Amino acid sequence: MKNLLVLGAGRSSSSLIKYLLDNAAACDWNVTVGDVSLNAAAEKVQNHARGKAIRFDINETASTTEAIASADIIISLMPAHLHSLVAVRCLEFGKHLLNASYVSDEMKTLHNEADSKGLLFLNECGLDPGIDHMSAMQVIDKIKSEGGKLVSFESFTGGLIAPDTDPENPWRYKFTWNPRNVVMAGQSTAKYLQGGKFKYIPYQQLFQRITSITVPQFGEYEGYANRDSLKYLDTYGLTDVKTMLRGTLRNKGFCAAWNIFVQLGCCDDTYQMEGVDQMTHESFMNAFLEEKAGKSAEQKIAERFQLTSYGHELKNLQWSGMFSDEPVGLKQGTPAQILEHILNKKWKLSANDKDQIVMWHRFVFEKNNQQHEIQSSLVATGSDPVFTAMAKTVGFPLGIAAKLLAQNKISARGVVIPTSKQFYEPILKELKSQGIDFIETHP
Amino acid sequence: MKNLLVLGAGRSSSSLIKYLLDNAAACDWNVTVGDVSLNAAAEKVQNHARGKAIRFDINETASTTEAIASADIIISLMPAHLHSLVAVRCLEFGKHLLNASYVSDEMKTLHNEADSKGLLFLNECGLDPGIDHMSAMQVIDKIKSEGGKLVSFESFTGGLIAPDTDPENPWRYKFTWNPRNVVMAGQSTAKYLQGGKFKYIPYQQLFQRITSITVPQFGEYEGYANRDSLKYLDTYGLTDVKTMLRGTLRNKGFCAAWNIFVQLGCCDDTYQMEGVDQMTHESFMNAFLEEKAGKSAEQKIAERFQLTSYGHELKNLQWSGMFSDEPVGLKQGTPAQILEHILNKKWKLSANDKDQIVMWHRFVFEKNNQQHEIQSSLVATGSDPVFTAMAKTVGFPLGIAAKLLAQNKISARGVVIPTSKQFYEPILKELKSQGIDFIETHP
Repeated sequence: MKNLLVLGAGRSSSSLIKYLLDNAAACDWNVTVGDVSLNAAAEKVQNHARGKAIRFDINETASTTEAIASADIIISLMPAHLHSLVAVRCLEFGKHLLNASYVSDEMKTLHNEADSKGLLFLNECGLDPGIDHMSAMQVIDKIKSEGGKLVSFESFTGGLIAPDTDPENPWRYKFTWNPRNVVMAGQSTAKYLQGGKFKYIPYQQLFQRITSITVPQFGEYEGYANRDSLKYLDTYGLTDVKTMLRGTLRNKGFCAAWNIFVQLGCCDDTYQMEGVDQMTHESFMNAFLEEKAGKSAEQKIAERFQLTSYGHELKNLQWSGMFSDEPVGLKQGTPAQILEHILNKKWKLSANDKDQIVMWHRFVFEKNNQQHEIQSSLVATGSDPVFTAMAKTVGFPLGIAAKLLAQNKISARGVVIPTSKQFYEPILKELKSQGIDFIETHP
Repeated sequence: MKNLLVLGAGRSSSSLIKYLLDNAAACDWNVTVGDVSLNAAAEKVQNHARGKAIRFDINETASTTEAIASADIIISLMPAHLHSLVAVRCLEFGKHLLNASYVSDEMKTLHNEADSKGLLFLNECGLDPGIDHMSAMQVIDKIKSEGGKLVSFESFTGGLIAPDTDPENPWRYKFTWNPRNVVMAGQSTAKYLQGGKFKYIPYQQLFQRITSITVPQFGEYEGYANRDSLKYLDTYGLTDVKTMLRGTLRNKGFCAAWNIFVQLGCCDDTYQMEGVDQMTHESFMNAFLEEKAGKSAEQKIAERFQLTSYGHELKNLQWSGMFSDEPVGLKQGTPAQILEHILNKKWKLSANDKDQIVMWHRFVFEKNNQQHEIQSSLVATGSDPVFTAMAKTVGFPLGIAAKLLAQNKISARGVVIPTSKQFYEPILKELKSQGIDFIETHP
């Protein structure tokens, strides 16, 4: 019997925990779910015979020691910056650790020790990062094995809403994962390779330098560059590629409207605003605009960004209630915290809402002196606001990886990401059986 | 006899050191100048009978102990982040410390200990911050003492070049102080009060939200908001004021051209660029622009920012050689380091160049139910590239403060800035005798 410990019972954990509990009897697992909120953990476990909910706070040594020491495999869905703290305890007690977050610098330093202790510290095994790596590497390895030479790789993923959800919402977007991460997205410089040249896009340009993307069978989207694509040149083994760009996908028009928040400084998380307890939605916006007698915040934004009053950017902001005299309802906060709070009033998933994941890759390669192109895309729709497409696509890869590891089918050790065949082949195969499947086109 | 120790022999130190040496005999001082470069220190001391040059490295305990223990007053012109390290040693040995930098959070925490030990830790006693505080408080105190109620205070300062210096330079700007600080300027959100409302300007808006300023007898300039003006509401005793804005002054057109660098991300100091050893000026610019077949960096900038080829923004960038195929000449660097290096090729002061300081305050106040306005401005021109206006206006206030302290004419103790009469009255008086004088107008 194996003991699995899931850390974090937040919104992305539902499908992972259900997958593990559903497989618990057949695989002979016990599944413990730990969260700083015991209630949140208990709600996910639902008195399952092989499940157990515990309170877990990484800052409390005694209880974390007990939880980690009695587990065989730990799966962390806690906030990304906490993974390395868990990893240190896993080294101490000789436990494997799986998570869906980007490899941090702290995590990297643990590779040798984890490797020498025979432990797997698997990172970036969710959706993006995760399924993107696996689905891309499957195609890239196939191209190479058939004698092709990859010259360009682009990959975009978005966590959106289904077309029939909230049809009057002009953003075509809601919070389907951590709202804070949505508000803070893009604040470090994006880096990529284009036509053999290194390219850098700062935050202030990010939502203006967008790419139009047509996803076969699903229509047009827009994409912006995501973080540091350059670091995957080595990991993907793409030493000769001329273009390498990973990005984020949004419905058309999102970026131009979001750019207003970015330009005004509404996503800044570095200082506390003054007078938050007296603040309305409109006075929040006005704090980033000059005083001009007789002009509303909306008029000032229209002037500053040369927008017409019937332009979609202003319509999006209006729909989100940014110009209303409704009190914000917070006592204090940074601009980012206040913006998140206001947006959440209309961007929280309702009972009938369904989210939708869209992923799209384009591979350009040379073979027999000819240039070829493959596009590969995935669209996954959520079941409801709990078992969202986001929860499934983040949770299943982790759950499947845990199963493979428990069954001794994974030989990789140390700090790794799932770019090799031992990960992508079985994980993509089981995802397909869950309806998470790619369409490949050869334009 | 008093021993004065000046730390830092960089470009802003020439006038301070000369002032102290010139006064050394009359005041019975010995003046020691310490720098990580003994040569730099020796060059400033010039074998003066009462001067001494030493090597000073704050990271070397033994030598700094000797230098600080044998001084009575320490004046630090080292980089701002080192002041608090010096301050800790000053507490240890019971020494006064003067500097011209903003009070850091670390420095603030030393107030009580310095105060209880009877030590003065005087900060912000240069030009800006420094002369701006003193000249403003002199007028503010006078308005109050005559029964006026201040409703608005704006203050702008710029370190520019004299009108007859480098006449073909379209920026009307050169590096007259620490070039790194010029390139990094504005990267934290500016905060101020306007019409009774708190206002915030992020970096990406800063050089677009400029104010036109007419300095009496000198003409039109442009200003952008500088750092956190709000923190001076308390320090200046301005609890009822409706508008409080401190800013930076530039010649007309500077901000629109500089904004191109800001928007492209050229001032980013958070990452190392790739391939710097092969980089030309134009390929540096191209790294922040999309690849477009057949388009030069200049054409791409013109398109992105909707500039005409005869617009002054592009002329400024051309003049700085940003589109040339000249090698950058660095092996590695962040965008900010590379931009500074390129700009310095043409922005370094030449032998015949003179810099110019322009400071401008506007005070609006109510008295006898009427609204009144006072403008106060200062223009100071450098003598040459060594005894610059910047060196004089940063150095003299520190030198005069040191003299007053040595003569026991300053009673303030602890961590302070020179906003009280005991500082501004004697310091502004002696500055006036040095030709650094304000013009007051009543529009």
